[in-house]
Amino acid sequence: PEDTLVSVGDVTIGAQPIVIAAGPCSVESNEQLGAIAKAVKATGARVLRGGAFKPRTSPYSFQGLKTEGLVYLKEVAQEHGLPVVSEITDLSYLETFAEHVDIIQVGARSMQNFELLKELGRTDKPVLLKRGFANTLSELLMSAEYVMSGGNGRVILCERGIRTFETATRNTLDVSAVPVLKRMTHLPVFVDPSHAGGAAWLVDPLALAAVAAGADGLLIEVHNDPAGALSDGQQSLTPGRFADLFAKLKAVAAAVGRSV
Amino acid sequence: PEDTLVSVGDVTIGAQPIVIAAGPCSVESNEQLGAIAKAVKATGARVLRGGAFKPRTSPYSFQGLKTEGLVYLKEVAQEHGLPVVSEITDLSYLETFAEHVDIIQVGARSMQNFELLKELGRTDKPVLLKRGFANTLSELLMSAEYVMSGGNGRVILCERGIRTFETATRNTLDVSAVPVLKRMTHLPVFVDPSHAGGAAWLVDPLALAAVAAGADGLLIEVHNDPAGALSDGQQSLTPGRFADLFAKLKAVAAAVGRSV
Amino acid sequence: PEDTLVSVGDVTIGAQPIVIAAGPCSVESNEQLGAIAKAVKATGARVLRGGAFKPRTSPYSFQGLKTEGLVYLKEVAQEHGLPVVSEITDLSYLETFAEHVDIIQVGARSMQNFELLKELGRTDKPVLLKRGFANTLSELLMSAEYVMSGGNGRVILCERGIRTFETATRNTLDVSAVPVLKRMTHLPVFVDPSHAGGAAWLVDPLALAAVAAGADGLLIEVHNDPAGALSDGQQSLTPGRFADLFAKLKAVAAAVGRSV
Amino acid sequence: PEDTLVSVGDVTIGAQPIVIAAGPCSVESNEQLGAIAKAVKATGARVLRGGAFKPRTSPYSFQGLKTEGLVYLKEVAQEHGLPVVSEITDLSYLETFAEHVDIIQVGARSMQNFELLKELGRTDKPVLLKRGFANTLSELLMSAEYVMSGGNGRVILCERGIRTFETATRNTLDVSAVPVLKRMTHLPVFVDPSHAGGAAWLVDPLALAAVAAGADGLLIEVHNDPAGALSDGQQSLTPGRFADLFAKLKAVAAAVGRSV
Repeated sequence: PEDTLVSVGDVTIGAQPIVIAAGPCSVESNEQLGAIAKAVKATGARVLRGGAFKPRTSPYSFQGLKTEGLVYLKEVAQEHGLPVVSEITDLSYLETFAEHVDIIQVGARSMQNFELLKELGRTDKPVLLKRGFANTLSELLMSAEYVMSGGNGRVILCERGIRTFETATRNTLDVSAVPVLKRMTHLPVFVDPSHAGGAAWLVDPLALAAVAAGADGLLIEVHNDPAGALSDGQQSLTPGRFADLFAKLKAVAAAVGRSV
Repeated sequence: PEDTLVSVGDVTIGAQPIVIAAGPCSVESNEQLGAIAKAVKATGARVLRGGAFKPRTSPYSFQGLKTEGLVYLKEVAQEHGLPVVSEITDLSYLETFAEHVDIIQVGARSMQNFELLKELGRTDKPVLLKRGFANTLSELLMSAEYVMSGGNGRVILCERGIRTFETATRNTLDVSAVPVLKRMTHLPVFVDPSHAGGAAWLVDPLALAAVAAGADGLLIEVHNDPAGALSDGQQSLTPGRFADLFAKLKAVAAAVGRSV
Repeated sequence: PEDTLVSVGDVTIGAQPIVIAAGPCSVESNEQLGAIAKAVKATGARVLRGGAFKPRTSPYSFQGLKTEGLVYLKEVAQEHGLPVVSEITDLSYLETFAEHVDIIQVGARSMQNFELLKELGRTDKPVLLKRGFANTLSELLMSAEYVMSGGNGRVILCERGIRTFETATRNTLDVSAVPVLKRMTHLPVFVDPSHAGGAAWLVDPLALAAVAAGADGLLIEVHNDPAGALSDGQQSLTPGRFADLFAKLKAVAAAVGRSV
Repeated sequence: PEDTLVSVGDVTIGAQPIVIAAGPCSVESNEQLGAIAKAVKATGARVLRGGAFKPRTSPYSFQGLKTEGLVYLKEVAQEHGLPVVSEITDLSYLETFAEHVDIIQVGARSMQNFELLKELGRTDKPVLLKRGFANTLSELLMSAEYVMSGGNGRVILCERGIRTFETATRNTLDVSAVPVLKRMTHLPVFVDPSHAGGAAWLVDPLALAAVAAGADGLLIEVHNDPAGALSDGQQSLTPGRFADLFAKLKAVAAAVGRSV
């Protein structure tokens, strides 16, 4: 069967061009988000990413700006003409997400939140479905099936690293997931090198590897002040480093017959 | 500090006696549940377990009787004087669970559903919090903290097997979790040998090992007709085999200074 | 088929009585070993364990007393009437081991050293074969087959913890390995709670769990001065704590129809 | 410090050009090896790989041609002017390997065979040290240290996939190992996509990902008749498919500033 193409605004995911989604881990303010959006768009990112409802291991960590963050995302996205992707953490927020966000992200910890998946299947919003950090690829496809069996076929899969015994990286990027998923399904496959490696210096090699292995898109964390970020600063690129990476991505994409 | 005791009806969890919760994976009918409840109570189980909202990897598997199942659980529990534990899969069901169920179970796939945990923290219902199959013990405690920081200290932790490379068992029971959690926290610790091993013949040795290692309670799947069960039949004990196991548990519990 | 019994001196492994092998991680001197042997024998250990050729992750760690250590093991073992088990790290030491040691241990890192296994299959020495920390149970049995296909059926299997994502314990004791191996094979199954947990306070619960799950024997590290031990002091019991554990093992063994 | 360069014949490993080692899993005959060597050299491989002593999980699988295989390797290598790499499985074969082989490979199962590593440290042969499938990168470096502390600094590290819960691929290629090892050490880093994925259709994307991530070389299994291979046929490329891959590698290597 033919590959599934997911279109949002003027961006098409799953086609020849590789789509780069970039932005901060957490939305912190309208200004912060605007500055980052401007920079990553100028570089070539086609989608803006940013977290407003943050799933955090500890209840005492920053939990996100919540609806306020979604409002900023919508404002900034419209100003810069970028569709926006953000993570939903509970079904009860679905209406708000439907209003503010172009692509709804299901995070690794929610990959088997089946009630949420079923409801997303009843919407017409594209869903970026991240692999749980201990879920097999076949379970990931079953979760995609929860969305699609509800009538919403606009699912984008995303590899973001799995749990292994290795501690040198935060998680182990399973780069094989890209060719395996492309062979098992017709859905577009993204990779999130920022969360997989957990360190800014690892983003470049992992992003390049993902593109070489056939990824249809990347999620890259970019922050104007990584040292001062409210979450995940250690794995965020500055806009300058993001531009450097973008140039390398262009070269590797071309080497495998694609563009960014 | 002193150990936390969680009392439900006339059952106290976390004290010297080990509490055995038994019952079917899924509630299938009032009759099925009644027959199993009668049998396990006669043997010595102090809590009835049964699933009504079933989180299933595939959308095409049996999804549970839902609210109808909770109604049966409440009826049967009252008839037999057993408190009941059942798994919640979404925040939106909280009111129904609060009405029908004595202990609310958070399943492995929801251990990091932080929105759910926060709301459970605002109730006064005991929460049986299962470890995610790829979550560390320290993450389990952080999730317990989400509940407790909301004001609900009645949390019971539960080890149910983790994902490893080994395929001879469904998951790998991490029996060390029992002493580690008992050392790191004052909360009661349960073990679910049925889900960990995934096979009826493994339930006895794993249950005995858990008690020997210091578990405060066990969750055991018991079904009157395992071969005909709508879910997890292969790991369910018949009432007769459950009675055999109970006798062995009594002996091992006594050997470590406890009773069942 | 009937269970395999492995007899060494007046000790029979695989029969009703559970066999406890105890002793230091490393043989450090004749005096140290003699003191420990005397103490553990008085408590009830039936086999003396001690390492002379030490496989160490770093080349700069203590590598063992080598042949000198084997000589001490033999002297002390004879003095106290205890058979001795020690780990071989290379085929070229086989003759020396055959002369000094009653049971030859193949360590986790050598479980798939097939050349070594083949040669051990040509001897008549009992072989204690430890599971590699990332080997499946079916691979462990294949490695046993390497020994047995050479003609030596006196193989004792040993679970010693596997590598997982959990970091609260050094390795994760796979207690299910005991019933699974007992079902798949007729060979005796030992458990090493000292290496699995990596901490003295974990030895008791893990040892008790292993016995409750059906283990035929245990390897316990005992040291007269854990704080001064040349290796693995943090997981060694003093002779006094070993005696305390022994009393508990007696009770749990009796509860499952066995003795120690 | 400067990067370590390992030179063998006219091949330099660790410099700008990426070195491709190709050949059959097992040497099966002089003719088979000659045909493959001719083909892979014509395509651009700089090193010939081939196994003569085969470590096999089961004692009943093909164990390799042993010394006869090494003889063929040497003859064919000389005829085609290619240095040869082959795996040693026991210390006792060291002299034979030193005579027939240019680069001695230590396989994943032997990564912590410390006696072997120490002896290799006393030779002047380059050592290709494969990461054990459950060893951390820091343990891999400790094993390299065993070789280097003996005086032999000519060590090449090799990532070949690790054990995880995922079963869609034979092992999980840890592509992050490349940048992590390049950052932690000055040694050249190879990747073996054939063993990692365990399937011919996965070799291309994994090989390209490895090069994009910064690998200094690749080990690729090539067989003239994969369906008839005595071992690992399912993951071997035909010479034709190897040539196709080589063209793609050239493009990706150029994109990251290197050549093959």
